[in-house]
Amino acid sequence: MYNRIKAQFSSDKNLIISLKNIFGFWPENIALYKLALIHRSAATEQSGHKISNERLEYLGDAVLSSIVADYLFKKFPYREEGFLTEMRSKIVSREQLNKLALKLGIDHFIISTQDSKTYFRSMPGDAFEALIGAIYLDKGYIFTRKMVINRIINVHFDIDDLEKLENNFKSKLIEWAQKEHKEIKFNVVAEVGSGNRKQYFVEITIDEKLYATGCDFSIKGAEKNAAEKTFIQLQLDKTSEN
Amino acid sequence: MYNRIKAQFSSDKNLIISLKNIFGFWPENIALYKLALIHRSAATEQSGHKISNERLEYLGDAVLSSIVADYLFKKFPYREEGFLTEMRSKIVSREQLNKLALKLGIDHFIISTQDSKTYFRSMPGDAFEALIGAIYLDKGYIFTRKMVINRIINVHFDIDDLEKLENNFKSKLIEWAQKEHKEIKFNVVAEVGSGNRKQYFVEITIDEKLYATGCDFSIKGAEKNAAEKTFIQLQLDKTSEN
Repeated sequence: MYNRIKAQFSSDKNLIISLKNIFGFWPENIALYKLALIHRSAATEQSGHKISNERLEYLGDAVLSSIVADYLFKKFPYREEGFLTEMRSKIVSREQLNKLALKLGIDHFIISTQDSKTYFRSMPGDAFEALIGAIYLDKGYIFTRKMVINRIINVHFDIDDLEKLENNFKSKLIEWAQKEHKEIKFNVVAEVGSGNRKQYFVEITIDEKLYATGCDFSIKGAEKNAAEKTFIQLQLDKTSEN
Repeated sequence: MYNRIKAQFSSDKNLIISLKNIFGFWPENIALYKLALIHRSAATEQSGHKISNERLEYLGDAVLSSIVADYLFKKFPYREEGFLTEMRSKIVSREQLNKLALKLGIDHFIISTQDSKTYFRSMPGDAFEALIGAIYLDKGYIFTRKMVINRIINVHFDIDDLEKLENNFKSKLIEWAQKEHKEIKFNVVAEVGSGNRKQYFVEITIDEKLYATGCDFSIKGAEKNAAEKTFIQLQLDKTSEN
């Protein structure tokens, strides 16, 4: 078992102590945590296999979802499934996990290529998920669950605030446009089909420049679809400006 | 603890013995399993709260995803994240879980309204997920994981077969159309925007009747989008024919 004394003699001393500070326990199998911090931009090859944190991220994502599902199920015994699902997707959203990872300082330990930091915007959140995967393999589900609830959810998430959080892309876009003094328009440009098979096509323009077109069986759905695409476009713009 | 003798004297004797036969263990808190079998069409109200299996389904879905993610992670140590994600979504797909639930005979124990059986096609799979949620609450993660791997995945899933399973909506549609002697067409009907913001609109017609339009930044994506919508339409047709 790693403990304070053992850590002093390890070549990974700094990482071990940082992990203890972030998560509150001494890691056993430090190789897992080191792997969790290798971004795919810095992946190495070993006998034809890519070595990066992507597999651990896949595992950590699933384990984290299960832990948060369980936490919300017990915290809100009288709320319906729809509420629980929405709350969970807010907690484990890319945006929230990124914020969390930066707050915990995980970004300082990620191994990646220099220019990838601006390009892969979800790198810190992905590494956080990979670390959850590492903790799960190192310490098991029950340990990971306790750690996530006590040191992550209870400390870093305000469930009441999250409940109010607007997850609607259309209102987010409108809010953003107002702040930036831009003129945003949602236009229904076409209707195809008839009856309950009718589909709507909505275009979004910002200062008269077309950003995205969305389609769905309802105008609201088409707007949402287009707003989500516009969001991605705006983030790409931002990245390429950096 | 429930055991064979105790079960004999319970008013839920039949259910307890059936659960033992299906999952291989004696349930402790039988109330959880009974709740897992109440479809929302037969939900009752209790002090303003709807009593059905939907909350347990939400929980079971997350726990099952985590267990399957872990199982595949360890079974395929050299496969990349994309493969693992795809395999998992095949195992926990609505279609697979429905088949599994029918095979296990879970449908015989579901409490629902008569006509809902044809309308809610995923009822057996949903109840299976809710039962996983019940087992998790009753027996914990480690027990549930062992049970799912030993009695479900290892017995009822052929991982090699699943690997070959075609999850591509376009090829599925084409295959279906050939079998049914129907003429299916994928037409690019519009291109909007330019450069890497160009979006494609694809229409699917079956025997010259328009079924769905899809849009995406690539023709392939737009086809997939439209094919998925067509699939839903075809299933709706089938249901309303019943």
